[in-house]
Amino acid sequence: MRTTTGYRAVDKTAPLEQWTFDRRDLRADDVAVRVTYCGVCHTDLHSTRTAGDFPMVPGHEFVGEVTEIGSAVTAFAVGDAVAVGNIVDSCGTCDMCAAGQENFCREFPTLTYGGRDRHDGSTTRGAYSDEYVVRDRFVYHRPDNLDPAAVAPLMCAGITVWEPLRRWNVGPGVRLGVAGIGGLGHLAVKLGRALGAEVTVFTTSAAKVADARKLGAHHVVVSTDEAEMAEQTGALDLIIDCVPVEQDLAPYLNTLALDGTLCIVGYLGSTTVDFIDLLIGRKSLASAGSGGRRYTQDLLNFCGENGIVADVETMPSARVNEAFDRLAANDVRYRFVLDMSDLPG
Amino acid sequence: MRTTTGYRAVDKTAPLEQWTFDRRDLRADDVAVRVTYCGVCHTDLHSTRTAGDFPMVPGHEFVGEVTEIGSAVTAFAVGDAVAVGNIVDSCGTCDMCAAGQENFCREFPTLTYGGRDRHDGSTTRGAYSDEYVVRDRFVYHRPDNLDPAAVAPLMCAGITVWEPLRRWNVGPGVRLGVAGIGGLGHLAVKLGRALGAEVTVFTTSAAKVADARKLGAHHVVVSTDEAEMAEQTGALDLIIDCVPVEQDLAPYLNTLALDGTLCIVGYLGSTTVDFIDLLIGRKSLASAGSGGRRYTQDLLNFCGENGIVADVETMPSARVNEAFDRLAANDVRYRFVLDMSDLPG
Repeated sequence: MRTTTGYRAVDKTAPLEQWTFDRRDLRADDVAVRVTYCGVCHTDLHSTRTAGDFPMVPGHEFVGEVTEIGSAVTAFAVGDAVAVGNIVDSCGTCDMCAAGQENFCREFPTLTYGGRDRHDGSTTRGAYSDEYVVRDRFVYHRPDNLDPAAVAPLMCAGITVWEPLRRWNVGPGVRLGVAGIGGLGHLAVKLGRALGAEVTVFTTSAAKVADARKLGAHHVVVSTDEAEMAEQTGALDLIIDCVPVEQDLAPYLNTLALDGTLCIVGYLGSTTVDFIDLLIGRKSLASAGSGGRRYTQDLLNFCGENGIVADVETMPSARVNEAFDRLAANDVRYRFVLDMSDLPG
Repeated sequence: MRTTTGYRAVDKTAPLEQWTFDRRDLRADDVAVRVTYCGVCHTDLHSTRTAGDFPMVPGHEFVGEVTEIGSAVTAFAVGDAVAVGNIVDSCGTCDMCAAGQENFCREFPTLTYGGRDRHDGSTTRGAYSDEYVVRDRFVYHRPDNLDPAAVAPLMCAGITVWEPLRRWNVGPGVRLGVAGIGGLGHLAVKLGRALGAEVTVFTTSAAKVADARKLGAHHVVVSTDEAEMAEQTGALDLIIDCVPVEQDLAPYLNTLALDGTLCIVGYLGSTTVDFIDLLIGRKSLASAGSGGRRYTQDLLNFCGENGIVADVETMPSARVNEAFDRLAANDVRYRFVLDMSDLPG
């Protein structure tokens, strides 16, 4: 076994605390990654603040360098700049895995933390730590022209919006809406703009109008303003809805053009849909989340070519509890990233 | 004015009765059609049995021959074999009309009966009658190699399933599901099969399995059998759901493959959707209904080329109340069509 130092939650109320724990020795297809930066996802906050499998080490969007490779690894070498997201294994044989959509694995993918290792049954521990050991298939080459700290959030927030952008062929001539400007939404705006789409942002906050334009939005609509919303009737081909709470979908559906799609990525609950809101204009309601191998390297390559990263606030990993508190208060633009260089490892 | 004889409902309980009433004189862009056959749609039954604008003359899927044309009509000549559906006018200028999807007209299309004429404000009266006067844009050429009685249902039941088949590019290699085998569903099976799709029928009735195969289904699944449904996990690209009542969508969503779509055409109410059922596999829930100019002539041409018509039971128009009673009892395979030759006109 190898040891690593990181941060754990021991229960759902205590602050995170530094902890030294074991990582497995490398299997033939494993890669050891020295974690340099790890993004702070809402899931980290949620998972450590609800009943779960404690102690829990969060962290599932990270970057680093390869420090060791297993005997069968050919795609990586020591020193490679890499990135890892929220999935570290999957069945590999179902239709979804065959399509490179391990995020939808029929046997459920192994999550980067709080998951069940498929070989030894252990609980996976996340990347709020100085080293991670991960199967090579779920490690991605990271463009070295990008700020590594700002790359980390691409691996969860980024891929979650990238997959629908790709699946619905967003590019020149496509009118893209993005609802909700947070960790996911701000990347949807940047990526959609870089793909050539005409981008409209929906925000409940008039204070975010200028920010949205700075991110690249061509148009900004205050979604609580009924008149502004009505003006957008039939204006959009695809909306990526990053709003993390239950909401009335009808006003958004109304802004879709013929054959348009409203794709929910921010909210995982249930809602009531009136079919007439879909029928008029033959619209679709979809949902998506996380990402698989099919599109993840594609995203990193696109970001490297287009100089796209997340807007981040980086802080030493020792300040993780401050990051959590501010995230809980929605005081972040748009993603906290922990710098692991202060860890003793 | 010109007179025509047909059938009216005077209130929501009385049987339909023969009635002679006025049709407008032809405007410059009007076509007069001698109605030979008119399909009996569920909407006819529903509209005449609920509170409405009485007296009501139903009928919105019909065929006939042109008997007179307005001074500006160039696309039709006296004697032409034609067909008309459930829309006879629209604003003509909105985005939906510009796309040939007058069924989604932003100002609502003028319906073939119970609609409001856009010029004189009169209430439209349907095609349970020996003549209909209609704007030329909403008249379609009918292939003369097909049984005219069996063409009539293509104009409402047919186009309602044809539009999603076209919009979702159904053809060779596409795995199509059809839920519910009635007026709409039986045409979805025939059309999907003729387009080259692999067709799976879902039916609640084991008694309809043989019928579904006769219509062209490659596979038939009894949707009330949980084990049979589970076997279909991830098996389909598109389901056209013609079930006319509220239903649990989760089992159907589960049968969709990656990026699949469940399109509801049979039920117009509202339902609860659990986003996790959409997220796993990045699926879409859509709705569609009726048809516009863009796809209607396309449907008739396709049916002419492929010899496709509805399965109908034709009866003299005087037996319209019998047709209604049997339709209410779900005793039809798969569409009643009224033969207007017994009318005195």
